[in-house]
Amino acid sequence: MNMSVVGKSVKRVDTLGKVTGLARYAGDLSLPGMLHAKIKRSNIAHASIKQIDVSKARALPGVKAVLTHQDVPRVLHYGSPHPRSASVTKDQYILDNKVRYWGEGVAAVAAISEEIAEEALDLIEVEYEKLPAAFTVEQALCPDAPLIHDTSPGGNLVMDPVIVTRGDIERGFAEADLIIEGEFKGGRPTPAYMEPNVCLCQWDGNGKLTVWISTQAPFMVRGVIAEVLGLPLNNVRVLVDHMGGGFGAKQDLFQNEFLCVLLARESKRPVRMELSRKETFLSGRSRHPVHVWLKQGFKKDGTITARQALLTFNSGAYGSHAPGVTGVSTASLTSLYRCENVHLEGRAVYTNTPIAGAFRGYGCVQSYYPLDIQMDEAAERLGIDPAELKLRNAVRGDDIAPSGHAVTGHGLEDCIRRGMAEVKWSEVRAQAHETSGAIRYGWGMGCEMHGSSAYPGIKEQGNAIVKMNEDGTVTLVTGTTGLGTGAHTALAQIVAEELGVKFEDVGVVHGDTDVTPWDIGAFASHTTFMGGRAAQMAAAEVKKQLLERAAERLEAAPGDLDIADGMISVKGVPGYQISVREAIAPRLGLPAAHLVGTASYHPTKSYSFAAHFVQVKVDTKTGQIEVVKVVPVHEIGRTIHPVAAAGQIEGGIQQGIGHTLTEDYVIDTTDGHSLNPSFVDYKMPLSMDMPPIHTIIIETAPNPGGPFGAKGIAEDPIIAIGPAIANAVYHAIGVRFHHYPITPEQVLDGLRKKNEAAPRPGIAA
Amino acid sequence: MNMSVVGKSVKRVDTLGKVTGLARYAGDLSLPGMLHAKIKRSNIAHASIKQIDVSKARALPGVKAVLTHQDVPRVLHYGSPHPRSASVTKDQYILDNKVRYWGEGVAAVAAISEEIAEEALDLIEVEYEKLPAAFTVEQALCPDAPLIHDTSPGGNLVMDPVIVTRGDIERGFAEADLIIEGEFKGGRPTPAYMEPNVCLCQWDGNGKLTVWISTQAPFMVRGVIAEVLGLPLNNVRVLVDHMGGGFGAKQDLFQNEFLCVLLARESKRPVRMELSRKETFLSGRSRHPVHVWLKQGFKKDGTITARQALLTFNSGAYGSHAPGVTGVSTASLTSLYRCENVHLEGRAVYTNTPIAGAFRGYGCVQSYYPLDIQMDEAAERLGIDPAELKLRNAVRGDDIAPSGHAVTGHGLEDCIRRGMAEVKWSEVRAQAHETSGAIRYGWGMGCEMHGSSAYPGIKEQGNAIVKMNEDGTVTLVTGTTGLGTGAHTALAQIVAEELGVKFEDVGVVHGDTDVTPWDIGAFASHTTFMGGRAAQMAAAEVKKQLLERAAERLEAAPGDLDIADGMISVKGVPGYQISVREAIAPRLGLPAAHLVGTASYHPTKSYSFAAHFVQVKVDTKTGQIEVVKVVPVHEIGRTIHPVAAAGQIEGGIQQGIGHTLTEDYVIDTTDGHSLNPSFVDYKMPLSMDMPPIHTIIIETAPNPGGPFGAKGIAEDPIIAIGPAIANAVYHAIGVRFHHYPITPEQVLDGLRKKNEAAPRPGIAA
Repeated sequence: MNMSVVGKSVKRVDTLGKVTGLARYAGDLSLPGMLHAKIKRSNIAHASIKQIDVSKARALPGVKAVLTHQDVPRVLHYGSPHPRSASVTKDQYILDNKVRYWGEGVAAVAAISEEIAEEALDLIEVEYEKLPAAFTVEQALCPDAPLIHDTSPGGNLVMDPVIVTRGDIERGFAEADLIIEGEFKGGRPTPAYMEPNVCLCQWDGNGKLTVWISTQAPFMVRGVIAEVLGLPLNNVRVLVDHMGGGFGAKQDLFQNEFLCVLLARESKRPVRMELSRKETFLSGRSRHPVHVWLKQGFKKDGTITARQALLTFNSGAYGSHAPGVTGVSTASLTSLYRCENVHLEGRAVYTNTPIAGAFRGYGCVQSYYPLDIQMDEAAERLGIDPAELKLRNAVRGDDIAPSGHAVTGHGLEDCIRRGMAEVKWSEVRAQAHETSGAIRYGWGMGCEMHGSSAYPGIKEQGNAIVKMNEDGTVTLVTGTTGLGTGAHTALAQIVAEELGVKFEDVGVVHGDTDVTPWDIGAFASHTTFMGGRAAQMAAAEVKKQLLERAAERLEAAPGDLDIADGMISVKGVPGYQISVREAIAPRLGLPAAHLVGTASYHPTKSYSFAAHFVQVKVDTKTGQIEVVKVVPVHEIGRTIHPVAAAGQIEGGIQQGIGHTLTEDYVIDTTDGHSLNPSFVDYKMPLSMDMPPIHTIIIETAPNPGGPFGAKGIAEDPIIAIGPAIANAVYHAIGVRFHHYPITPEQVLDGLRKKNEAAPRPGIAA
Repeated sequence: MNMSVVGKSVKRVDTLGKVTGLARYAGDLSLPGMLHAKIKRSNIAHASIKQIDVSKARALPGVKAVLTHQDVPRVLHYGSPHPRSASVTKDQYILDNKVRYWGEGVAAVAAISEEIAEEALDLIEVEYEKLPAAFTVEQALCPDAPLIHDTSPGGNLVMDPVIVTRGDIERGFAEADLIIEGEFKGGRPTPAYMEPNVCLCQWDGNGKLTVWISTQAPFMVRGVIAEVLGLPLNNVRVLVDHMGGGFGAKQDLFQNEFLCVLLARESKRPVRMELSRKETFLSGRSRHPVHVWLKQGFKKDGTITARQALLTFNSGAYGSHAPGVTGVSTASLTSLYRCENVHLEGRAVYTNTPIAGAFRGYGCVQSYYPLDIQMDEAAERLGIDPAELKLRNAVRGDDIAPSGHAVTGHGLEDCIRRGMAEVKWSEVRAQAHETSGAIRYGWGMGCEMHGSSAYPGIKEQGNAIVKMNEDGTVTLVTGTTGLGTGAHTALAQIVAEELGVKFEDVGVVHGDTDVTPWDIGAFASHTTFMGGRAAQMAAAEVKKQLLERAAERLEAAPGDLDIADGMISVKGVPGYQISVREAIAPRLGLPAAHLVGTASYHPTKSYSFAAHFVQVKVDTKTGQIEVVKVVPVHEIGRTIHPVAAAGQIEGGIQQGIGHTLTEDYVIDTTDGHSLNPSFVDYKMPLSMDMPPIHTIIIETAPNPGGPFGAKGIAEDPIIAIGPAIANAVYHAIGVRFHHYPITPEQVLDGLRKKNEAAPRPGIAA
């Protein structure tokens, strides 16, 4: 297809505002009479609240409202705003007479300044009755473990375990020439978005609530707040303009939003609440720590005969996305590498630790890390090159994907082949061990697949309204949210392409639930895929109306017309054309056309693929692992904006490197308190730490349901980088790691154990 | 039709915000770094600017931008935002090297405070070369009159005269038993809206302009600003929330909006400009002062055989709506009272006085005042009761209306008959003169008709988007503007009625050109008629989608279903029903329905009718006229909100009483300066001055094109009250006035002349 706008790296619509500071984030807002709110947090991980005395806090001059569990509706709410989805739990009160993790909110204050609100927190006296606690999954699963919730199906399980069975694993293992099993552990990385959670709430005199908030899912926020407070949906207006990241965590409502809404109602004033960086750790959402037991059987030729796994997720004190993550993660092991016989079990466990939730990669980080490392191990045992082994087993067209849909195309094979060629895989794998001295180099690779759209976990719908102005410029009205990824630029490109107008002629209205059509929220890599497709369909509707109008003037059938570069021409008749502007000018006693098109799109599922090739350098004296080079190859059907797509890939790799090497939010397992809730102690890779990334995007398996064939890209790049690094480290130093993050101490420890086990080579150089 | 919401005086959606101060008007806004702007105005009525020195003003600390005619685009613009309409002229520069009226802007300043901006104005030195001026129409039409514009078709005419001819007036006058002719004059009342013109302009880094403004026509403002500055329409966003009145004048752009936009661009800061009350007089828009010569022929039975008129409008220094007002006013004399032979000429003349423009009643105030007074005169001469004479000649179904359309129904006759019955016309007309002493009472009546929609002067289109939320609540997205009349409440009622949901379940989004579908603006009494019809059609589209979805569940054809009170039932099958909420709940693998309907409505024309019956009291010692009682009878097809409709009627009557008795913005005809540009000297009737008004609304001639038959009401009530008062004064004291306002001095003068002319009755009591 010959494209004018799609596939071009046009100037993003949000860039100039962001670099000049004019772009408005929720935290930039200020309203007359606005109060500032703070939350009193527990300093104990599991306890009943015997008594809570806020009288001194209420008496402090400048304090306008104080709320405890006695003052708020006792409604169990969905921490996550997917009220009618099976992916999330409904197990949290706004404030409870119990606390279940260290840092949970027990009271909230609104005052005329942040300082006074902080001071008031210190005046609140809480009498706790300490309860026995479970800080680890092992503790929580003990028969005599303290029960964290009354509602769970048994013990501290969040929900009934997820079981996925296909074929016959017993027969599969019986047919195997090689069986490998292993245990794997994943840490607790956090999304660490730049913009802390913030909201500003205002009630008008008619009982209408307006919430400015940094959220990925404004309509979901509207739905949950309306449900909890018993308001009709058109009395709740949720606004979000620019955002400084979310990475999945900002799909959830924490305690602060409900408290901000209620403090504003109580005080009859606008109330602003912004979490401190520390609070984003305490009360935010991390990736689920995981324990995976994985066993696979292989034939000599590399065919996988059976796969069995038990995945145990630590959900923390509340369920949040535990059902969804467990389900997606467990089902993901049916695929990526083909296997006819699988038996997979996933479970999620409550503990008295901070809450895990949705985070980029949504369960697949936790499952494909073990899988891809075990494939590397099997390759070595089978004497097959690991990339070749993965190629032989790669999921391909008409295979059943984890969602139950058929896979389209051969994207994964294409990614692996392209990467092997690009890095000269055979050569670099052969060269790597040759490095002498304390510094060792190695190459590894990993793969992933990830669906665009949360279907079938959540039934989805993309909507759009497209308006054409009387000068031929266009406005897209969309409910999609921009986390900072350039989503609205991509949507404008799609509309411009469909309508044959310039990119600059398309404006985008978004971020206001009163104004835009409903949207499910920005997650599941579906904004460009689903919101983009709806935008394309609405634009096509406008195009239809426009061509009908132009057809009269050009004395041709609408079907014989086409639009490009703002000109409407009769196909095959050069020069016979009118401009879009002429076509909509006043005519025949009618005013200029003001065309409006709307569309709803019900997607199924679309999978994107990637293979990441990584070179690492390991300092055997310090244990330091450095990623030297990354060559990510991604198959995404159709690239709408190459620079933005590459930006997503680079960002995902940066986060993935952090996951694998440095990032872990650590909870003290003696009392449940957080050890590193700050950027001083929680270490993310900075731009200076980043290796060169040579991104390759291919378009070999377009999805016919996506806009111009496009599929998602957002979550994919965080997944394959992890096992690629672990495999490269093994290639460099011969030490196999089954967990993340892999720290220098562990590298040194691993080297020491390896050397102890190996025959002594005499005197070391 | 059985109505649930339409016809009920529901609580207006804007009331609580307005009474509590939470409602946001354009003037309430403040932005960080905002500057304040002021305009330097000429103190001479007609002059060339030889030199203008702003160096001292620019040097004043705190001044951020100064503009003169040398710094602004030299583009002739439409003072009025109807760029492609024949109703308005294009004869004004943003700033010119000439001034044409006393108070015209010659320079503008933006500074960090209003005080500094004012101070800077005093530092601007202007050297004028005075030109000969024409302050009256008579002066402007002299053969040697100074030319005010180079562009006019001849002399100081704004445009070619409007000629309307029908039948043969020579034959008509030849057939007459009675011929009456007279000259009439109308003063210069101003709309005097509570909220002075204000705007706030901000440019973002991407070249997008946002304008918060008090305007009746945000999309028109967008169009004119985009045209003058050469911007695409999607780079201009115009926002208006609540408004404190407009009455037609706020369809126009004055100089201040352009200057505010340009000062913001020059200073790279948000700039706010608010006119002082004095400036709303100097640079605002008044009703066109008029001189009407009117001649009619009558048969003995009251049949009108011929009508001839010459209407001469004083447009002031610029054309603004002169073509439209002249056209509507001239054409209006073809109707109201039937006449087969008419010859009507209307012309508009430039003078060196403030600009006249659009004002409630749009030309009909000026034409029906003479017509209805002359009918009263004719009735007396013919010995027929004046109400009876008007009834005999009242326009009726299938007559050709001024717009060229056929009239629907017998609304005018119904109004006259109902009013006569209500006030016991025959009795009160007989009793009136009996009052003794200095105080005299009298009854009079007047009639009017007024079209909803500016068609055919402007081609119109109403648009609407209706969204249904997943809980069955509804949002109407409309481009219509609320001047303070309750328009959005009426539109919400229409949507609720059409969809069968509660009024409270409908929210309204408006006032943002980026967000709403295009709208022509709030004027021509068409918001409820045209915007309401479009809203009804969009709601019907949502209803269709909803019933299709419900039909599956109820196992019935969509056509057999109906919605009332939020329940969808099968017609004729009691109890077989589901709620709207159930109908849109998730189902069959699809998410909850998020229904969106859009509609465009191209109206023709609809006329509303009224007859006003008035009792006055005249103090023959002081000359004071007091309106004692008003009984307005209005036929409006269908009343959407009785209290709001009555409010429109009462407000119109208040303004009409002002026009007729006290309001006149007076220009000194020696040098063109304004004598009373303030509420101290310009006298409007206050609430304490108002008589009891017994409003009667009838619905005997619904318009099939309107929502549930509704027609407009906004402009009608200001028209008939004037001649009704003049006729009542004649009934009270026997003195005939042919002008407005009628002042106490003129009453005393009239009584004196009448007494001088009459035979002396001996010694007065």
